[in-house]
Parts: sequence; structure tokens; C-alpha cells
Amino acid sequence: MSSRLSVGILGATGIVGQRFIQMLEHHPWFEVAWLAASDRSEGRPYAEAARWRLKTAIPARVANMNISPAKPDGAPKVIFAALDAAIARELEPQFAAAGCAVVSNSSALRMQSDVPLLIPEVNGGHIALIETQAWRRSSGGFAVTNPNCSAIGLVMALAPLHRRFELETVMAVTMQAVSGAGYPGVASLDILGNVIPYIAKEEEKMEEETQRLLGTLTDGRVVPAPFAMSAQCNRVAVEDGHTESVSVRLKHKARPEELIAAWNDFRAEPQQLRLPSAPERPLVYMTAPDRPQPRFDCDLGGGMTTAVGRLRPCNVLDWKFTVLSHNTIRGAAGAALLNAELLKAKGYL
Amino acid sequence: MSSRLSVGILGATGIVGQRFIQMLEHHPWFEVAWLAASDRSEGRPYAEAARWRLKTAIPARVANMNISPAKPDGAPKVIFAALDAAIARELEPQFAAAGCAVVSNSSALRMQSDVPLLIPEVNGGHIALIETQAWRRSSGGFAVTNPNCSAIGLVMALAPLHRRFELETVMAVTMQAVSGAGYPGVASLDILGNVIPYIAKEEEKMEEETQRLLGTLTDGRVVPAPFAMSAQCNRVAVEDGHTESVSVRLKHKARPEELIAAWNDFRAEPQQLRLPSAPERPLVYMTAPDRPQPRFDCDLGGGMTTAVGRLRPCNVLDWKFTVLSHNTIRGAAGAALLNAELLKAKGYL
Amino acid sequence: MSSRLSVGILGATGIVGQRFIQMLEHHPWFEVAWLAASDRSEGRPYAEAARWRLKTAIPARVANMNISPAKPDGAPKVIFAALDAAIARELEPQFAAAGCAVVSNSSALRMQSDVPLLIPEVNGGHIALIETQAWRRSSGGFAVTNPNCSAIGLVMALAPLHRRFELETVMAVTMQAVSGAGYPGVASLDILGNVIPYIAKEEEKMEEETQRLLGTLTDGRVVPAPFAMSAQCNRVAVEDGHTESVSVRLKHKARPEELIAAWNDFRAEPQQLRLPSAPERPLVYMTAPDRPQPRFDCDLGGGMTTAVGRLRPCNVLDWKFTVLSHNTIRGAAGAALLNAELLKAKGYL
Amino acid sequence: MSSRLSVGILGATGIVGQRFIQMLEHHPWFEVAWLAASDRSEGRPYAEAARWRLKTAIPARVANMNISPAKPDGAPKVIFAALDAAIARELEPQFAAAGCAVVSNSSALRMQSDVPLLIPEVNGGHIALIETQAWRRSSGGFAVTNPNCSAIGLVMALAPLHRRFELETVMAVTMQAVSGAGYPGVASLDILGNVIPYIAKEEEKMEEETQRLLGTLTDGRVVPAPFAMSAQCNRVAVEDGHTESVSVRLKHKARPEELIAAWNDFRAEPQQLRLPSAPERPLVYMTAPDRPQPRFDCDLGGGMTTAVGRLRPCNVLDWKFTVLSHNTIRGAAGAALLNAELLKAKGYL
Repeated sequence: MSSRLSVGILGATGIVGQRFIQMLEHHPWFEVAWLAASDRSEGRPYAEAARWRLKTAIPARVANMNISPAKPDGAPKVIFAALDAAIARELEPQFAAAGCAVVSNSSALRMQSDVPLLIPEVNGGHIALIETQAWRRSSGGFAVTNPNCSAIGLVMALAPLHRRFELETVMAVTMQAVSGAGYPGVASLDILGNVIPYIAKEEEKMEEETQRLLGTLTDGRVVPAPFAMSAQCNRVAVEDGHTESVSVRLKHKARPEELIAAWNDFRAEPQQLRLPSAPERPLVYMTAPDRPQPRFDCDLGGGMTTAVGRLRPCNVLDWKFTVLSHNTIRGAAGAALLNAELLKAKGYL
Repeated sequence: MSSRLSVGILGATGIVGQRFIQMLEHHPWFEVAWLAASDRSEGRPYAEAARWRLKTAIPARVANMNISPAKPDGAPKVIFAALDAAIARELEPQFAAAGCAVVSNSSALRMQSDVPLLIPEVNGGHIALIETQAWRRSSGGFAVTNPNCSAIGLVMALAPLHRRFELETVMAVTMQAVSGAGYPGVASLDILGNVIPYIAKEEEKMEEETQRLLGTLTDGRVVPAPFAMSAQCNRVAVEDGHTESVSVRLKHKARPEELIAAWNDFRAEPQQLRLPSAPERPLVYMTAPDRPQPRFDCDLGGGMTTAVGRLRPCNVLDWKFTVLSHNTIRGAAGAALLNAELLKAKGYL
Repeated sequence: MSSRLSVGILGATGIVGQRFIQMLEHHPWFEVAWLAASDRSEGRPYAEAARWRLKTAIPARVANMNISPAKPDGAPKVIFAALDAAIARELEPQFAAAGCAVVSNSSALRMQSDVPLLIPEVNGGHIALIETQAWRRSSGGFAVTNPNCSAIGLVMALAPLHRRFELETVMAVTMQAVSGAGYPGVASLDILGNVIPYIAKEEEKMEEETQRLLGTLTDGRVVPAPFAMSAQCNRVAVEDGHTESVSVRLKHKARPEELIAAWNDFRAEPQQLRLPSAPERPLVYMTAPDRPQPRFDCDLGGGMTTAVGRLRPCNVLDWKFTVLSHNTIRGAAGAALLNAELLKAKGYL
Repeated sequence: MSSRLSVGILGATGIVGQRFIQMLEHHPWFEVAWLAASDRSEGRPYAEAARWRLKTAIPARVANMNISPAKPDGAPKVIFAALDAAIARELEPQFAAAGCAVVSNSSALRMQSDVPLLIPEVNGGHIALIETQAWRRSSGGFAVTNPNCSAIGLVMALAPLHRRFELETVMAVTMQAVSGAGYPGVASLDILGNVIPYIAKEEEKMEEETQRLLGTLTDGRVVPAPFAMSAQCNRVAVEDGHTESVSVRLKHKARPEELIAAWNDFRAEPQQLRLPSAPERPLVYMTAPDRPQPRFDCDLGGGMTTAVGRLRPCNVLDWKFTVLSHNTIRGAAGAALLNAELLKAKGYL
């Protein structure tokens, strides 16, 4: 156990913080050694400070760990951050400036030009942006981020199409799970028997991040992919798993079996490097006419596999299909964890 | 009471049949005089044959009416039909051939070229197709239909835009209520905490019907509207109210306040004729950033008003917005009832 | 309009405050003239300060009223209070001391020996306790309360049995709607697909209040009813309507039709006085084997009627049955409103 | 693999049949070799005949197996039966008469005096009834059954109390998951946002079975336990996990820590024999004030552990507590599987 790398979690008591703890419980490379959360949790044992909302039990080691102050002093050098954007904007730079590797799930630094917004299967090369960060030069610290939970599933599904056939236009409408809003998050009186056709700033994030993730790193900066992109975001009464109805136009025309093969055959660096959290298959195309469905399919590949289904022609663009991705695993904690694994494999940690 | 016109209901025990009974309870022009359903209900009192799933009680008069055989003999001359498509295909022509006015909610005859597919606010003129029906010439009977529950809300929202600004492209993604599938319909094990990204034949119906409804009647036939149209249909855990995320491209560019005015100012023949089931305002634009929502807004205008909200620019087409419509009132029983009221006002009944 | 009595609402922005506003919109005797809520709402128009969660629209008059400070200065003499217990404990006495009639839905003063805990159909006579209040003597002000939302439906169902057959033992297990916890209240992550077998202090309230409500006023104090009483409280994924599985033992043995008649025939002072919010039938026994159900039956009598069903023998006590009551109407705002109407009819306002 | 005992499944396509297949996938003793279902499934591959409703995938071996006719010819000697009661009443005796060991989850034979109604942790000795069966003498075949899904969790929680303190009175109110009704089972229109206070014949089963399971085998027949028992059964919008609010009176008074120890320390023959499906801990007492909850706790011990919580005094009987048990694992397929394992360990298979 002692040979594992100590890591800390900022925002450890929230829904994503909980997923970090769950996913790190038996991790071969990393070990949770430090937890921080809001002031009112400070000094309390984790099991008491957190309202644990996962089906597996709190790992015994973590249950009794005390919540530390959210300051770099005494924190490990590798920090997973699961903070609200406003707090992240303040704290993440502090940790990076203090020499930490900040692996963040927050939106605070995502669109900062020198911070890699990363999906290891998609744009692992953007990791090189780290070397352009001022923190890196001063303290050795740096920050990387993963995308919004609604962008990541979409981009996973788009990446193989973009590589082979080049995207010209993307339209996506999401039906997002309540866990994406954290805890307590969405009030039951708001969502029982209901749809909320609005999630603050979500559409903007999806549009910007998708283009950045599929963009190219040129002369030390990311040039966003040039396709047109439009998103509409809705909240539905689902616990976990964001479902998306997507339409695309491709530059190079393709037959449906070619698209399906692009998804099913897709493998990338995390699979080649056998990163511990990398799913064997990043994408699975489901052939049943009514799949994927969040309650049944969001745990594919331990929640790290994106499911695609219902490929059919679109009367306006070229193709329509449905995408499903686990929003707090592949869309948050698992995304950051895979980023950290890539960083470790590349010698950054 | 005796001055009201006797009407019958085919498929009286289903969810839409129940809505007919509910909406006709205090109707000033029509009176339920005859009920038919499947063979196994025949001869039983309605209250016993139907599994009533509405919040208001079964009207006392109807509760004790016996279910008649589903045959034209003894049926009134005005028939509301709420049958499954396969049965409708067999029965509706029988009633029309026997001289009945069949006001149908089923999809069986919707795309038959001489049967009006009708929304009184949108294409009341298509009613003239009745005169081209063979039934009309032989027995005086005829059939009119209303659109699918997912098409009607969309078309209500599109109609004022199409009139003023001309639609070039329409993309719609639906999140549809379970009541749209009838009773027992969607199993709870399928939809609790879930999204089903598939409804059999729904996308095809939405696309075809939308173009037909906004089409023009020329030389005794309907020429579909020429815009491109693509639909994706999903089922969500909502009781009543179909929500749709829509994007459109318009031929004549417009400012957002012009679109909103087009919706809010929209009035049509049913409002001018003061048809009993016509909502005062067919469309309402809601200004709150997170509305309309099915649980709170689907009963607007007694379930006959379509709500629109969230108008904002689309990066791919011109505009994005959300539409909400009550699927068993405006999208089914209320639609047929308004058709019948228009027929009566025009002297067809 | 001006002949109506001006009333104020303390806690106007919460779920129960919203119900007050909804129920008072067309009230023949009372008119909303003053609204107060938490500090952060002060000075803002109601429509902006409240997150309105009801299906009917905010009454136009109220939408534009500004939120006043929660102080007796400038407040009307009749105050409906829908505050959290902790705040109620501080504010309600201030208003009573300042001469107001405080008609409270909070638990703060419910078990205070000189404050009537009132259901007009059940123990209207307890209103006489008002005269024993110190506030009454000093300023003319006073306070009355209504029971907890889980106690009121139970007591409505028990009252006619207790009168005719005398209760010896009562056991009740509740399945309570999320609206009972206010807004935002129960997090969706806690209740979707779930049951929470715990509501803080609810079981104690149900037990104490039930015995007090069915108790007798003797020598200026209420002697609780002497039957044994046990409650277990659960939260379920229902929007409105508390369902309860009840067992009772009666001192005087009765046949089932006698119990059913006791419920169906029950009428009391509010019905005789024709109080505006009194339901024609306080109790309805439903004969279908699977009723009452919250989604279909909680709006009976405008939400003021308690539904009972499933009467059958109990192997341990005498009888088992199911009770359903609307928790924010009969169980909160409607309860207080009926109390106010009784006070007015008796000359207290 | 070939050393495992071949087993068949009657009713393989239903929800419980699916759980059998899931739980047998990696079973060390048994191997699925034969599947039967209704006539219309006959001859089709399993993956096509079943509407699979579990989160794990259909085991590859089973997916391609064809559905056999539901007749003993060609069936293995060990049959798991997951049939509707009416069909079970006809088929189960046929298989027992043909020499099969029928391990049934249906209610058909449960109350037949010579058929063991079995929970291995509770009344394993009742297995001896097998020797009194006519089938056993004629063909060597026999039948054993497991209890109703609502009875089994209750009895698990009662058994240690009954052994140590002797039950005098039991009252239970259930909140049952929709999966208990099979598939399609409960219609979504019936249960979304609702409680159904009725499940046909469920209360009778719970009462009878509980007394029989805790009864004693005397002179070749089971004498039911003599305590008084009353049940009320409700359906709630939960996918898996029956929650029960229970009150008991004990003959020998006990302190709460003694009851909790009785649950936590409970071990029985399946644990001693290390039966493959036996949970390490049959019962777990949860100390958090609001647990157990079905969504978070029903998978304890792989769904085979019963969770208890909220022990507190009852004003009417002695103690109140909450019980939770997975209804399709411990309450159905897992129950039968554990029965089969006990039979095998005892040399009956």
C-alpha cells in the first residue's frame, strides 16, 4: 500500500468527491491521503461530514480521516479537485502555485488557454499545454481539467467520426441526470414527473468545450475544431447517466456500418497504455432499437464506456443517433482519474 | 340537455377515450350517448369496464352506460374515435361508410390523401377534403383526423413562424409523457429513473404530419410544406405533457421579439368562432428562463394552450426554443373535439 | 373587494405560503394585504422573491406586492403564519403580543397548553382556550394552530370512529409526500426510486397531536384522549398527498358498514356554518379495492376532503384501513384557513 | 464446467427468471442447461424471447440457448421455477411427479402441508417434509418453496427476535418495489408520483407464511407460530427493495442493544455450511437514523442480506423498526437458489 502515490481531494464531501473516493478505493497507483471540503466540515471525520450518496459503503480508511483545511500546506502533491466553479477559481490556482498537480473537474480553468481540457482517448496531446503554464515554471505545479459531464459523452461519440469523416455540423439535445447538479442539487419538487428545459451555462459549456476538445494544438495553443455546434440542455428525473439526441453532418459521406465500426473499433492511448481506469472499449454501439437507456446502460465499462445507439439518417443533417454516458464517472471523477493516470504514465506526477 | 347533439365514442375505455368523456361532461353542443370498446368490455357498465385514470370522477351519466358493440348499427351519427391504429384501420371506414362523421384521433387514416389531417387554428381549410371522400358521396359519412400528440404541439408553435417568416428547416427532439402510450402502456420497470430513446414510428409520423399540416390545399390535394424536417423522439418519466427542444431556420430573418409576438398574438378561426374548446390564447410565450415545464405548465388554457419558452439563437440554424403541449388534451381528445366543433360550426354535423 | 378583511402572510414565499396565496385568491371573506418572508426577500416583489411551485399562476395582485419586514408594525390584524418552527417560536408571539390574531401552521406553539390546536370539524370547542392566553388579555391578540400534515388526515378519519365507538388503540404508518418538507426540501437524489423511513420529529408530533386533538377541554385545559397511539413515518416519491396505513381497536365493537357510515355521514360545525373552505363532505369512503391513491384522490373536495378506503379486519387490533389527505391543503394552508373562517364565524376576527 | 450440476429454469424470461440466470452465471455448483417459458417463446433463442431488464448483460451462453417446451421430457433433474401461481399449480406437480427436484418461487404449493416453505437461515429443518411427499415415494421427485418477497425480509428480521425473546404480536406495513409485480407488471401511469395501497392476496400470504416459517415441525407437519400477525401492503415507485415498518411485542422483555445484537450476531446453517449464495451476515443493523433505504441498501450482501434500522420503543407494542430486503434476490431468485444449495449440501440433489 505504501508504494502508492498519495493524493488529496478538494471538495471531498460532494457527489463527485464521493465518486473519487469510491474509484480510488482499490486503485493500484493512487492512495487517498488527504481530504478537504468547506469550512464547516473542517476537522470532522469524513463519514460524519459527508452525506454519502453511493451504493457502496464508504471505504473504512477514508471514513475515519479528518477533513483538512483547504490549503496547500500539508496537502499531497497530487490533488483531485471537485469544487464549485466559484471556489475552484480561487483555490485551484493556489494549489498549482504551491507546486501541486491539480487535476480538476471544475469549469473554472477549463477555457483558460494554457490549461489542457483533456479526454485521454481524444486529445491526450493537449497535455503539452502544461509546459506553458506560469505555475509550472515557478513551482512545478500545474492544472489540467476534464470537460463538463454533458460534453464528454458527446465528444467521445464524435471523436471517431471526426477523425474518419470530419464533422461539419453537430446538434445535440441532452436529457441530464440529477446527480449532475451535485447534492442537494435538484429539489424533488422540481423534477418529480417533470422536465426542466434549462441548466445554467450548460449549453455554452457544451458548445465551447466540444470544439476545443476536438481542436488541434498549434504553436502552443488550441485551435477549436471549425464545425458548427448547437446544444440544448434539459434535466430529467434520472439518477445517473446523461442521454443525448445527436444529429451530425459529415464532410466525407459514409455508410452506417462505417460509422458503427468507427465507434466499436475505437481504441486510443489509454487502452494502449492500459491505464487502470481506461475501459477496454471506450465506445459501444448497441444494436437494440431502444438502447442505450440510462438506468440499464450507464454502468457499461464500469461507467467509463460511452454507449451509442439508434443510428439512422437525418432529414436535415446526415445522421441521427443517441449517446449515453455516466455523468459522475466518465463525466466527472472517472474523467479526472483517467487524466491523472495519463499524467502519471507520461511522467508528470 | 336534450338539445345537444348525440355523440358516440369508439375506444371509450382507453386513456384518450377517458379524456373524451371528461371533456364532454359539460359540453354545450355534444352529449355522450353511446360508448364502444373492445369485445371483452361489451355489455358491461362503463365504470366497471374502464380503468379510469383521471383525477376527476367518472361523470355519473356515463358511469352507468353500457358498452355497445363496436358496430355502426345504433350508433349516433357523430363518432369520436380513440382506437389503436390497427383496429381503427378496420372500424373507422365502416362507420364512415355507414354515414357517420368519424372524428378520429388514430393514425390509421391520417396520411390518406382525401382525409383532412386537421388543427383548426392551423389548417382549417383542409376540411374541404371531406368533399372528395367516396364515403361522403355514397352515405354522407366522412372522416377527419387530428395529428399525433408529438406533432401537434410542434405545429402549433411553428404555424405563426411559418406564416410570418417561412420555415426552411426544423429539427425537434421530444421528451414525451407516458400517457401518450395509453394504458397500461409503458411499464414502470421501463421508465422509473430512465429515458427510453425510442417510440415506434413516432419520428416518421412527426416528420410527415408536420409537413402536411403546414402544407397547402391545391387542386383538391395537400401539398406538404417544403421545409426540411427531422425529429428524434424520447420517452421520459412524466405523466402528462410532451416537451420538445426545437431548432428552426427561417427564410425571412426576424428579431426575437418578433417571434415572441408571433406566438403571443396568434389567434385563428377557432378563437374568432368562439368554439367551446378553443383556448383564448392558442400559444403563450413564457419568459422565465426555465419554463415551460410539463408538471407545471401543461394545463394552461385547460390543456389546450401550447407553451413556448427559452427562445435563443442557434449556432447551426437560426433559433432554438422549447415547446410544451398537453399530449392527451391538445394532443388527442381536445384536438378531436376542437375538430368536431369546427365541423359543427361549418355545418358538417 | 374592499369589504374583505385584510390578512397578512408570514412565510409567504414557501410552499405553504404559496398555498395560502392560492387559496385566498378568490376568498369571499379575506384579502391578502401584506406579505412577509425572510430578510433576503424583503423589499422585493413577490413574483421575484418566491419560487412559485403551484400549477395555477401567481394571482396578479399578489405578484407585484412587495415583501414587507416580518414585524407587526404595519401588518394587518389577521396573520397566517407558515414559518419554520424555529423562526415561528420567535415571531408568532411578537405578533400575538402586538394584538394580531395569529393563525399558524407551524409546530412552534402547537403543544403550548393555552394555544388551541384545532381542526374545526373535530374540536372546534378548543377555540375557547384563546381566552386563557396572556396576549388576549394584554393586547387582544391571540394564536391558534393547526396540526401537523400527517396528524390531520389521521385525526379526520379517527374522529367519527372515536365519537361513535371510542378508540382504544391506534397504529399508523405514513407514506408522506415531498411537499410536506417544503422547498427545496427533499433532494431528488434522496427520493428518486427510494423510500426514506425517517422524518425528524414527525412521529412524536403525530402521536401527541392526535391525542390532544381528540382530547377534551376540561377546566380550561385539554386532557388528551386516553387511547394508545403509535406512529411510523416514511417519505415517498409523491408530490402531494400523505397516505397512511392505519389499524385501530375500538371499545364498542362495530360492523364494517357502521364504520363506513360513520365516515360518510360525518358532518360538523364547518359544514353547518357553511364556512367557505369547508368541504361538503369532510370524509369519503372509497369502495374500490385499491383506493385512495395520492395522485388520483388527494384533490377530493378541493383538497379539503380526507379519503378513506380498504376497511378490513385486523388480526391484531380490530380494523385496518387506508387514509389519504392533501398535505399542503387540508394538512397546512387549508387547515389554517378553515381555522380562520371558524374564528371569523365565532366573532374572534 | 462440466462437473457442475445441470439445472433448468421454468419461467426463464420473467423478472425472477432473469435473476436466476444472472445469479447462476458464475455459480460453482449449478449450471443452466435448460430454459422454458410460455408457448410463444418456445423455440426462440433466449436473448430474443426475453425482455432483459437487468443491468448486467445476458450471459453469452444463455443468450443463444433456445427456449424448450415446458415439459419434463428432456429437462434436467433440478428445476428452478419462477412461474405465475396459476401456471405453477399445473406445471410444478408435473415436474415433481416426473422425478425432478422443483425449487419453486411461486405461491402455488407454498401452503400445501407436505411442501417445505423454506428460509435456510430460519427453518432449514422443515426440509424433512420432503420425505412425506407422494412424488418422493413414487418418482424420487419433490418440491420445495420459498416465501413471498414481502414475507421473507420480515421473517429474516423476526427470526432472531423470536428465538431469543419470543414474539407475541407482529404488525407490518410494507412499501413494495415494482419489480415484485414482474414485467410488465405495474403500469407507469399507476405508480409515477403515487402509492397503491393494495397488492392482491399479498397481506394474506405475508400473514400465513410468516407464522408457518417461524412454526415448528411436529409429527411430520408444521405447527404455525402462535403469535398474532397483521400486515398491510402498499406499492411504491421503487425499482428494487421492499421496505417495511414493523412493530412487535415480545414475551421476554429485552433492551434495545440486545435486539440489535440478536440481529447483528445472527448466523445459521447456510453460513456454517458456507453455501455459495449465503451472505456472510444474514442481517445488518444500520445505525444511521434514516436507514435502511431501498435505493442505497438493497444490494447489501449481494442482495441477500436483510437490513434493519430505526429500532425505537412503540407506544402500543414494544418495539418499532424498519426492515429492507431485496425482493427479487433475497425475496425470490436468491431465496430459491439458497434453498437449492441447502438441498445439495444435505444430499437431496
